[in-house]
Amino acid sequence: MKLKIGVIKGDGIGPEVVNEAMKVLDKVGVVYGHEFDYTQLLMGGASIDTYGVPLTDETIELAKNSDAVLLGSIGGDAKTSPWYKLEPSKRPEAGLLKIRKALNLFANLRPAVLYDELKGACPLKEEITEGGFDMMIMRELTGGLYFGERSTEEKNGVLTATDSLTYTEDEIRRIAKRGFDIAMKRRKKVTSVDKANVLDSSRLWRKVVEEVAKDYPEVTLEHMLVDNCAMQLVKNPRQFDVILTENMFGDILSDEASMMTGSIGMLASASLNETKFGMYEPSGGSAPDIAGKGIANPIATILSAAMMLRFSFDLDQEADAIENAVENVLKDGYRTIDIMSEGKVQIGTAEMGNKICSYI
Amino acid sequence: MKLKIGVIKGDGIGPEVVNEAMKVLDKVGVVYGHEFDYTQLLMGGASIDTYGVPLTDETIELAKNSDAVLLGSIGGDAKTSPWYKLEPSKRPEAGLLKIRKALNLFANLRPAVLYDELKGACPLKEEITEGGFDMMIMRELTGGLYFGERSTEEKNGVLTATDSLTYTEDEIRRIAKRGFDIAMKRRKKVTSVDKANVLDSSRLWRKVVEEVAKDYPEVTLEHMLVDNCAMQLVKNPRQFDVILTENMFGDILSDEASMMTGSIGMLASASLNETKFGMYEPSGGSAPDIAGKGIANPIATILSAAMMLRFSFDLDQEADAIENAVENVLKDGYRTIDIMSEGKVQIGTAEMGNKICSYI
Ligand SMILES: CC(C)[C@H](C(=O)O)[C@@H](O)C(=O)O
Ligand SMILES: CC(C)[C@H](C(=O)O)[C@@H](O)C(=O)O
Repeated sequence: MKLKIGVIKGDGIGPEVVNEAMKVLDKVGVVYGHEFDYTQLLMGGASIDTYGVPLTDETIELAKNSDAVLLGSIGGDAKTSPWYKLEPSKRPEAGLLKIRKALNLFANLRPAVLYDELKGACPLKEEITEGGFDMMIMRELTGGLYFGERSTEEKNGVLTATDSLTYTEDEIRRIAKRGFDIAMKRRKKVTSVDKANVLDSSRLWRKVVEEVAKDYPEVTLEHMLVDNCAMQLVKNPRQFDVILTENMFGDILSDEASMMTGSIGMLASASLNETKFGMYEPSGGSAPDIAGKGIANPIATILSAAMMLRFSFDLDQEADAIENAVENVLKDGYRTIDIMSEGKVQIGTAEMGNKICSYI
Repeated sequence: MKLKIGVIKGDGIGPEVVNEAMKVLDKVGVVYGHEFDYTQLLMGGASIDTYGVPLTDETIELAKNSDAVLLGSIGGDAKTSPWYKLEPSKRPEAGLLKIRKALNLFANLRPAVLYDELKGACPLKEEITEGGFDMMIMRELTGGLYFGERSTEEKNGVLTATDSLTYTEDEIRRIAKRGFDIAMKRRKKVTSVDKANVLDSSRLWRKVVEEVAKDYPEVTLEHMLVDNCAMQLVKNPRQFDVILTENMFGDILSDEASMMTGSIGMLASASLNETKFGMYEPSGGSAPDIAGKGIANPIATILSAAMMLRFSFDLDQEADAIENAVENVLKDGYRTIDIMSEGKVQIGTAEMGNKICSYI
């Protein structure tokens, strides 16, 4: 297969970790006979430096013309980054929101997996995580508070700010379907998270999710209030298979869940539209404090590339090969500094990429 | 002192645990020479049974005429409770929201404390909680998504639901002041939590909080995004002193934090208005599955009564007496079933109340 990948290296450790993911993709290409063509795209700080804005329409067009996009990370150091000169609403976060909307990436998949080899770094007691956990958070990504109307105005001399949280039946239905589809390939359980005891949008959410559930009789559906879910993630993460939720709740819960794995440098993510197209990026941030030092963990980005092979290119075998290579490298005791522990061998970003390649 | 306390026993385990709190208050009355007059008020299931609605205007008036309100818990068993016959928007949660608004209880204080004696129940590894943690979550309780306009309408044949999140400068200022006031009596650190990279209401929140901070030069202020806060609570709960945040974020984060203590049956809460008036209730729920069995943990409610003495009646010494009594009972090895562990003595709800009284 010949595939066009838009590559947004981004800021901070982005370029370093993306380089390793490309290295691994190229190895997959050699072994399995595929050709990956990369088009470098600018977003975030690099785009501000070049074009004065975090994301240009041209970049969006180029992204649309690729088969998938691989993203490093966006965001930077408050002291040195060019975009902190921009007013808050024009900052790179805006670039991220804009590209999600422009590419219609409504389905954000964030796996939170406890790696057996890395249990030591998990903040939860062993008795809670025994047997490990493996959940998939399916976050709606182009609706809700993130994209509602907002305003800040003076009313009777007092500043008043409003954001609105809107969901339509259609928006809920398409993400719910994706959630159930994923659950069918996993342990067939969906936990739909809302705040239906307070919000109209959550009551509609619950209603539509129940309608969609009828088409998936094999899947067990449960509803959970968001406050309870924030507790249950800590109390008993093993109970979850697929968590299906709206944009803001998903933002909060997926970060909570990822921290509970203790190895955020390992977690991939995918943002998909209605077709096979998707944008793939590590769950962690741009870590400007360690940028350029060659010590960042590239595994989350490499696993994001694996997700790309699986979800956008239907190359399951190749995706498996990457995931297995990562597991083997861990088993053999190689670690970047963020996941280092006693008795293991510490290696840098590029070495980690090389090791993973060597197992493919 | 002679004090009028409105008592809402509520549903589930509410009546049982409130009885113990009243017992403890009476003991404090005898020892320190105060008289507590209780007026029983109905809310939730009991009110639906009697009046057909979860909260009447008469109850609100009676509550307003007391010096403070003690609340057991509201909510019930989906299978047996009368209110599950009501449509969602008319359910007891509505009673809770209505009373908060009617009594103007905008400042919700939720302590999350790791009890040394109960460390075993904490889901976090010991190395993370070493030295314990003790944070106060200050949640805005009468604004934001909970009280914004909402609607569900058909637009072009598609149901569309909207909730709005509004904050005015004044609403933010008064809760922020409360947060800084509390911080001054504690470790002098405020972590203000928002989503200022996305929401207008959060940008206004941040601006006003910074203005208020100028009047408290001794307090260290930091801003944290809500997704990051959900991670930091798990990663390093010791970093927090006062967390100051809006209604929905506070709902989610306070539940996450309370679960991290491992002993939600121990956690009190207070909801205050501009004056000394407040409503005090345990952080946990109504636990209908164990209601009437005499095994519920009354400590959270008893500690809520202590908060009442402290915040509404300025009886610090008496509040200390209750808090010390609770610690001593724990030290002596007495436990209700929810916090039971090997080598300890299991006792019931009433016995726990008695034990605590005996230490005052
Ligand atoms: C940067 C920010 C706008 C973004 C979000 O909240 O969606 C980030 O936290 C994420 O989760 O991808
Ligand atoms: C019952 C519900 C409306 C309420 C809330 O969300 O405020 C509860 O979760 C709480 O935190 O007191």
